[in-house]
This record gives sequence, C-alpha cells and structure tokens, in this order.
Amino acid sequence: MADAPLQIVVLLFPNVTQLDFTGPAQVFSKFPNTEVHLAWHTLDPVPTDAGWCIVPTVTLDDCPRADVLFVPGGNGAFDVFDDLVVLDFLRRQAEGARWVTSVCTGSFTLAAAGLLTGYRATSHWASLQMLDTFGALPVSNRVVRDRNRITGAGVTSGIDFAFVLAAELFGDEIARSIQLAIEYDPAPPFDNGSPEKADQAVVNKIIAATHGLRFQRVQKAARALETAGD
Amino acid sequence: MADAPLQIVVLLFPNVTQLDFTGPAQVFSKFPNTEVHLAWHTLDPVPTDAGWCIVPTVTLDDCPRADVLFVPGGNGAFDVFDDLVVLDFLRRQAEGARWVTSVCTGSFTLAAAGLLTGYRATSHWASLQMLDTFGALPVSNRVVRDRNRITGAGVTSGIDFAFVLAAELFGDEIARSIQLAIEYDPAPPFDNGSPEKADQAVVNKIIAATHGLRFQRVQKAARALETAGD
Repeated sequence: MADAPLQIVVLLFPNVTQLDFTGPAQVFSKFPNTEVHLAWHTLDPVPTDAGWCIVPTVTLDDCPRADVLFVPGGNGAFDVFDDLVVLDFLRRQAEGARWVTSVCTGSFTLAAAGLLTGYRATSHWASLQMLDTFGALPVSNRVVRDRNRITGAGVTSGIDFAFVLAAELFGDEIARSIQLAIEYDPAPPFDNGSPEKADQAVVNKIIAATHGLRFQRVQKAARALETAGD
Repeated sequence: MADAPLQIVVLLFPNVTQLDFTGPAQVFSKFPNTEVHLAWHTLDPVPTDAGWCIVPTVTLDDCPRADVLFVPGGNGAFDVFDDLVVLDFLRRQAEGARWVTSVCTGSFTLAAAGLLTGYRATSHWASLQMLDTFGALPVSNRVVRDRNRITGAGVTSGIDFAFVLAAELFGDEIARSIQLAIEYDPAPPFDNGSPEKADQAVVNKIIAATHGLRFQRVQKAARALETAGD
C-alpha cells in the first residue's frame, strides 16, 4: 500500500500577511505525496493584508490531523489571541504533529496557544523581542529550529524556512530540485533586508511608524494572558 | 487635489503559479497611493497551481486602465493563448500603461498578445529560449528591462522584479524601506536556484520531467499563431 500523504495544515485568518504563507505554499506544492489544507472557521473567502481574498479549503472542525502545522503572521495573527476555538485547534493539532511551525508574527499565535513556552523562536525583526512576554526565547536568525519547532523571521523568510523543512522531510536532493524548479536564486536590487544591513534612518522610520501597532499588540497579549489565567 | 492612485492590473487565470504574483503582490501592497486589481473573466474564485483559490477583484470588462500591467506565469499562461478576449484586454491595457510587465512564463502570454515583439525579455529558465518563437529576444537575466517592458525570470524572481519596479516608480528610498518591512534578506539553505549553479543531474531531471509540457506549449503556441494569422 502506498504511504498516506503528508498532511500540512496552514491556519488561515483575516488580515494574514499573504506572502507569509504563499511563499512557503509554493514550496509545499512541490512536495511529493503531500496535501496542503488552508483551515479557518468557515469556507468563506478570507481577506489578506493585500486586500484580495484567499479561499480556505477546510473548516477547523473538519480539518485532518496535521503532520506539519504552519501558522503565518500578520496583523490578524494578534486578533486570534482571544479566539479560544483557534487556540484549542492549534493545541490539538500540535499534539500529533511532527513539526510545529510559523513564519513572521505567526510565532506569536503559536506562543499565545502556549506552544512556544521555553522554545527558542524567531519572528519579524520589529516584533521579535516581544516573544519573551509569551515565554519563548527570542533568537534573531532567519530560521530557528528548537526540537520540533521551526520558526521563520519576517515575511520573505518563509521561503527559506520552507526549504529547511523540505530538507528535513524529504532530504537535500528533493529540496534542491524544488529550489531549481522555482528558480530561487534571489538577487535583490538593494541590500536593505535586515535592520543590521539597512540604513538606520529607514529602520527608525519603520519602528516609529509601527509603534502604535506594537503597543496595541502588547495590549492584546496582556488581555489574552489575563483571560488564559481566569 | 491628491494625485490619482497608481493602478496596477494583474491578470489572474486558472492554474496560475501563485507565487509568480503573490510575491510581487506583497511588495505592491506597500506601494504608496496604489490600487491593485486582480482581473479575470468573472469574479468566481480562480484555482491556482497550488490547488487553493484566489478571488479576482474585478472582471476584465470592468477593470480600470492600468498604469502597470502585470502578467504572472504558470501552466495556465499557455491556456489563454487562444482566448481572444484576454489577448485583446492585454493589448488595450498595454497601450496606455507606463509599464508592461510579467514574471516567469507570463512573458509568453504577453508575447502571444504581440506585446514583446522585438523586445528583450526573460522567463523561467526551462522555457526561456522558446520566447524566440514569439518574436521576443530571450535574455537569461533575473530581471530584464527593455523600454517600458520589465520581465522577471522563474517564480521567485518576481520579488526581485517588484523591487526594480518599486525603485522605478517611487525611488530607491521607498524600495529599500519596503525591503526592510518584508525582511527581504534571503538566505536559501542551498545554492541551487539556477541551472548554472545547480547539479547537472537535477537540471537534467527537471528538463526530462517537463519535456512533454514544453512540447504541449509549443503546440499551443503554434495553434495560437495559426489562429492569429487567419
């Protein structure tokens, strides 16, 4: 009998940063014998941060058990902090999963579900240190692995994360073959992709522009932790 | 009065390679004063190559005039070769556009509409030379600009393409700021992203596996050229 297909479960939610998962999803789509599920409360189209919508493939209730659980980030990642159905879904799925993973601020959603407590993990550079509030150990790397947790940093790091995962699951040769198939030979016209490399003025501008957002996120986190403690 | 928003029109179609446009779309979503439209015949969800669906935002009939016309690739790019409504849409949109652009095999769709005749252009490495059949001049670069045409190579090159476009439209500072915002500091775990860098065995395997596909594409191209000549 053929092996059962690998089940990858992606948590989809309104205001997801779409490239957080569409990047890895392109790599996942080339995995051998693999099914990818986009799970949310309903099957109604979900608006992404880019405005347009993606259609979930399965509801949280009907979702198969994940071999790989994957949570992308975005502003919406903080809105599910007090969604007990989602948090419970993540906890149940994580129990049986071989890999529990996230990209960008998706690590906060995992952390809110208690799934990164005591784990080294990463996130988008502008939010990374806040992981500490949730009991995770923030590490400033593009991809961070600790036991069966793999977390990626901001947005585009999801593609690098997906190749790390590909190699884990299927070995280097298949990972390399997928890399060639999607011509992943990046050549950014500027070298400004991390706060270490960027002009300090640009870094400061983003930090200033997102200050209110970070404050809101801390408030949401505080409320969620309070509720969890009730 | 404030400037009118920049209009970016993306041609969406069934079996699009989703990262061809979701990569650039993440960069577009951070452009100042910009509207992005996903255009197709109807507003029904469109299945991507990854299985799940994206919802168009506008029909071809109702689509506003593009300042930037953008065509992603994928197997579906070859299925619109004989769709005269799509080809006519592209020609009309290209007339008034500041930039006419594509990623991956989207350059074949532009070429099928006659929009790359005599232009240097690129495409996915495994299909690149076939651009010649359509009167374009194949160039093996990650991003190729010729007059107001900008074409990107395979799949992930769309992200590099989008930063080239960002700098053209808004200047280097904004492009660099978006790069930091989406933490585009790529670190692939393997260096196998182009046929020059890849193991020859992996290259040959992909060429062999896609031989039938390329043959079908040539047939579709021949039929389309025949029809156009009627």
